[in-house]
Amino acid sequence: MKTLAIRRPDDFHVHLRNGDMLENVAKFTERHFARALVMPNTMPPIVTAEQIPFYRREIKQAAPNLEPLMTIKLTMRTTPETIEKAMAAGAIAAKMYPEGVTTNSNDAVSSIESLYPVFGCMEYNGMVLCIHGELPEGFVLDREWAFLETLEAIHQRFPALRIVLEHVTTDDAVQTVKRLPPNVAATITVHHLMITLDDVVGGFLQPHHFCKPIPKRDKDLVALVEAATSGNPKFFLGTDSAPHLKENKECGSGCAGVFTAPVALACLAKVFEDEESLDRLEDFTSTFGANFYGLPLNEGQIVLVKHDNDDGYVVDHLAGGVVPFMAGKRLQWWVSQNAIRKEQP
Amino acid sequence: MKTLAIRRPDDFHVHLRNGDMLENVAKFTERHFARALVMPNTMPPIVTAEQIPFYRREIKQAAPNLEPLMTIKLTMRTTPETIEKAMAAGAIAAKMYPEGVTTNSNDAVSSIESLYPVFGCMEYNGMVLCIHGELPEGFVLDREWAFLETLEAIHQRFPALRIVLEHVTTDDAVQTVKRLPPNVAATITVHHLMITLDDVVGGFLQPHHFCKPIPKRDKDLVALVEAATSGNPKFFLGTDSAPHLKENKECGSGCAGVFTAPVALACLAKVFEDEESLDRLEDFTSTFGANFYGLPLNEGQIVLVKHDNDDGYVVDHLAGGVVPFMAGKRLQWWVSQNAIRKEQP
Repeated sequence: MKTLAIRRPDDFHVHLRNGDMLENVAKFTERHFARALVMPNTMPPIVTAEQIPFYRREIKQAAPNLEPLMTIKLTMRTTPETIEKAMAAGAIAAKMYPEGVTTNSNDAVSSIESLYPVFGCMEYNGMVLCIHGELPEGFVLDREWAFLETLEAIHQRFPALRIVLEHVTTDDAVQTVKRLPPNVAATITVHHLMITLDDVVGGFLQPHHFCKPIPKRDKDLVALVEAATSGNPKFFLGTDSAPHLKENKECGSGCAGVFTAPVALACLAKVFEDEESLDRLEDFTSTFGANFYGLPLNEGQIVLVKHDNDDGYVVDHLAGGVVPFMAGKRLQWWVSQNAIRKEQP
Repeated sequence: MKTLAIRRPDDFHVHLRNGDMLENVAKFTERHFARALVMPNTMPPIVTAEQIPFYRREIKQAAPNLEPLMTIKLTMRTTPETIEKAMAAGAIAAKMYPEGVTTNSNDAVSSIESLYPVFGCMEYNGMVLCIHGELPEGFVLDREWAFLETLEAIHQRFPALRIVLEHVTTDDAVQTVKRLPPNVAATITVHHLMITLDDVVGGFLQPHHFCKPIPKRDKDLVALVEAATSGNPKFFLGTDSAPHLKENKECGSGCAGVFTAPVALACLAKVFEDEESLDRLEDFTSTFGANFYGLPLNEGQIVLVKHDNDDGYVVDHLAGGVVPFMAGKRLQWWVSQNAIRKEQP
């Protein structure tokens, strides 16, 4: 049995939803993560400063030991004043979804140029811009690639704006982010480090691997793994853990999203071990993201344990009504239940 | 209201299954098609001559007005003698599935060269070779393209063998078939003339659009439509209508196949009309395939009727326990229920 202690990690991209789903799923993020950047595409979405303390309180009720890092969703009605108020209410990032690209994004941004005053305000005030970097139209495998020129245009217009290109899935995106200055970074999910399109539609159809952006080719997977494990501080963990009830995935018109929160760290340990980079796991999960956002590093540690194949942990088939990533699979790595926890302040 | 009478069509690739499913679905093919080349990947598969009359009888019981064109499945145990006996029992084609590529293909062909004596026998006796033209491994969008060199190798080794590359989905496959002599042809499905990968994973996940080979890009769709509507006798209809119970599509590990039998001709009329090629529909559905197989043309006609948008036919949500292609959608074209039918002999 092998163990690995790492600083308590942050998830810089998670969907906790609201209402019953929040109650069901927040605890899985709380179990392993100290902080989580919580996406604002709830129903209704978080689009004003006034909503932020209420949503924050709802999260804290469901997961008292999790420190939620709050965000606001950009819409065509967002103004610089919205941003300033949201920051005053504790938001550290604003999320831009091009219109229609993912769950609850119907009211999202249809004209990026019209948000330039908002970006200027964010640049001035040091608020981070998180982008779902896909064009809403075009061939599904090309949508991220096609967005990269927009990313570069925003960066050139607002050179000091901190930008996170969320859940990158292509070699092209990795290379673009690498080429741009340090204030443009990217998050990488757990599942995009493990699956390609073949794992969605290459055998039987796998709705629990279906997500946006859709996983791509082997060469993209290789580029993502290299980016995550190479110690480049521009790339850090944002799981995009996105719960949908089983019946909303296994149906005639399935929702996009992979629920990785329960297994994220266990899976990452395997990915990093396979690359002989376990010594870099902590940077990816617990250092680079906090540094990019200008947050203090977490105190305390979690302990990852590697079992023999035969007595590894079998992932539950259902967690909070949601089929988690790797459901029913035996994982060698797991997070110790005896992990050192930082007490709630 | 517009009408179009065409010679009763043939479906040169259909899955009728056996048992209860056969009972449920054969009638949909019988309703519009005079003859159908029935795939042998039943459970158990049709691999010996002895099974053919039994399966033929089962089909005739379920669909007395349908003339089944029988096939045999090639496995690593198929011999030239198997082929000769199968032909004597009425089979007109042998189907090759590379191992593991689709429904019930686990016992399929893992070494194509070892079937060369079988291909030689088929070439000598004039039996058609139908191929599911995908490599079993490699990136899902590349598997058909990667198979094309195998197709060419088989053709070069057996230049007089009649080969049908089934359900082509790529511009590359269309161009390869065009380039080869007239004894190498291709079938095209209805759904591959209408959907791309975007209609599977580009929005919500659409399990009822999930099939093998997976639909590809726009440029491939354009090439397929051009091939089908251009009057090239190398391309003819094989729907690959492949029923799976709703619960085996809308689940955690979904089966591949689109059930187009109930709507195939209605959809084709729209595709051909959009290309201003309605005058070529009959060739695609009722002439080119029969000519390739050396079968007499069917007698009798069916009548396609075009309704105004508002009083078009709405496709059932369920047909024989299966969700059909275009379920719940309103179709402008439909096959008249007063169609002229050839009486059963």
